[in-house]
Amino acid sequence: MTTQQLYEQIQYKKSFLCIGLDVDLDKIPPHLQQTKDPIFEFNKAIIDATHDLCVAYKPNTAFYEAYGIKGWRALEKTIQYINENYPALFTIADAKRGDIGNTSSMYAKAFFDDLNFDSVTVAPYMGKDSVEPFLQYKDKFTILLALTSNESSSEFQQLNLQETETELYKQVLKTSKTWKNASQLMYVVGATQAEYLEDIRKIVPDSFLLVPGVGAQGGSLLDVCKYGLNKKVGLLINSSRGILYASDQEDFADKSRIEALKLQREMQIIIEKL
Amino acid sequence: MTTQQLYEQIQYKKSFLCIGLDVDLDKIPPHLQQTKDPIFEFNKAIIDATHDLCVAYKPNTAFYEAYGIKGWRALEKTIQYINENYPALFTIADAKRGDIGNTSSMYAKAFFDDLNFDSVTVAPYMGKDSVEPFLQYKDKFTILLALTSNESSSEFQQLNLQETETELYKQVLKTSKTWKNASQLMYVVGATQAEYLEDIRKIVPDSFLLVPGVGAQGGSLLDVCKYGLNKKVGLLINSSRGILYASDQEDFADKSRIEALKLQREMQIIIEKL
Repeated sequence: MTTQQLYEQIQYKKSFLCIGLDVDLDKIPPHLQQTKDPIFEFNKAIIDATHDLCVAYKPNTAFYEAYGIKGWRALEKTIQYINENYPALFTIADAKRGDIGNTSSMYAKAFFDDLNFDSVTVAPYMGKDSVEPFLQYKDKFTILLALTSNESSSEFQQLNLQETETELYKQVLKTSKTWKNASQLMYVVGATQAEYLEDIRKIVPDSFLLVPGVGAQGGSLLDVCKYGLNKKVGLLINSSRGILYASDQEDFADKSRIEALKLQREMQIIIEKL
Repeated sequence: MTTQQLYEQIQYKKSFLCIGLDVDLDKIPPHLQQTKDPIFEFNKAIIDATHDLCVAYKPNTAFYEAYGIKGWRALEKTIQYINENYPALFTIADAKRGDIGNTSSMYAKAFFDDLNFDSVTVAPYMGKDSVEPFLQYKDKFTILLALTSNESSSEFQQLNLQETETELYKQVLKTSKTWKNASQLMYVVGATQAEYLEDIRKIVPDSFLLVPGVGAQGGSLLDVCKYGLNKKVGLLINSSRGILYASDQEDFADKSRIEALKLQREMQIIIEKL
């Protein structure tokens, strides 16, 4: 997928919603627990109920790895189901990987070739040669952690650097723009850090930002949009728990649709004002 | 496992060798390619041939994820094989994970509960609340990336911080010591960065350091030991490609033993001088 295709989908659906498929077996409605593959059946129902309201799905790999082979199979089936039935949707493997070059190449193979995700999240700590193997894939995107939504993000990300008199997360943004195929980069910026988006947009005005933290983590959609929107929207706002667990009864998918619809309507108003 | 048990094993075997099980299907000898599970059969042969010469095995998850379910199953079988047949060995999931708290808890469940590894490598970029869920497990270890062995490690890790007038990787070491259950921490320090070990030992004199980069990446065992050893050894030196791919013929396991033996003998001389 290209960013232009992603933008067109945003315009068509009047939505820049990303739904995080972070499925905790303990929270799946009881009637699905009896099925052969509860995680996949849950995802399938959520996807069928929300695919016209969002532009992206983002399974977090931790929630699949925690269930071993069974979990990995559910992840494979989920991404296959999206790619076969809703190929226009942008898919994100929220994996936060990153390793030395030949190892990052294996992760890129896992998520881009084997699973066929459109994008993967990557941690920046190991620098350029740990990220560039992901950037070699045409029309695939690497979503680099910049400023994350958790409380401890300040512990290292917001420390000031002597060399450049800037915070670490801004240095990550600046430096990453010099990497080969940097146009294949997007960035993670937490919604709980909306006030920083104004500065971030000065460094990466045109890039897509993946913004987790709206909802359960306390971030505000309006604040994020106020500081983070660019002319081509440039935001993917993620919600996971608020949509997935709107109900733990047989009506869970209908209730998840209602929650997704609330966010889509807010986004529609915002897009139409652009 | 406790660090005391690890130290006793080092003394008994006169070795602080860790073997990295980073299995690339393209490099497995042709006669194993015909078997039902070439990756596991390869690992099993390497483990059987080297278990008395090393104290730890370290599969890098990227090399398993790249082969999807088949790869994840090979990883499961490999760790089970080690735990059942050689339970004294220390096992490391080289996964470089790290995410917001509830997600890191799922990764901890995946590697400590489900797969039953003794330890997992974790990236520090997201700070305390992304690491502490791993540290809650008694007798399990979290090996935090400090200064990695790749060329780009200098790009962010060696930048100087204004607040503390120290490099980022040293700040990671210092800060991590304040986290809850910090005694369950070990650190990754690349062998290609041996000259920095003297300073690192001032910050974490007693911690075990996992040192990749000896061999294929060019690091020197003697240099690492000169600056990195402590009274209880405190080092796990990893070698992957140099041992695994000593031969691509039917004698590959014998040849891998010869390479492991060379390193063990160098280590024996070093330990006996301590």
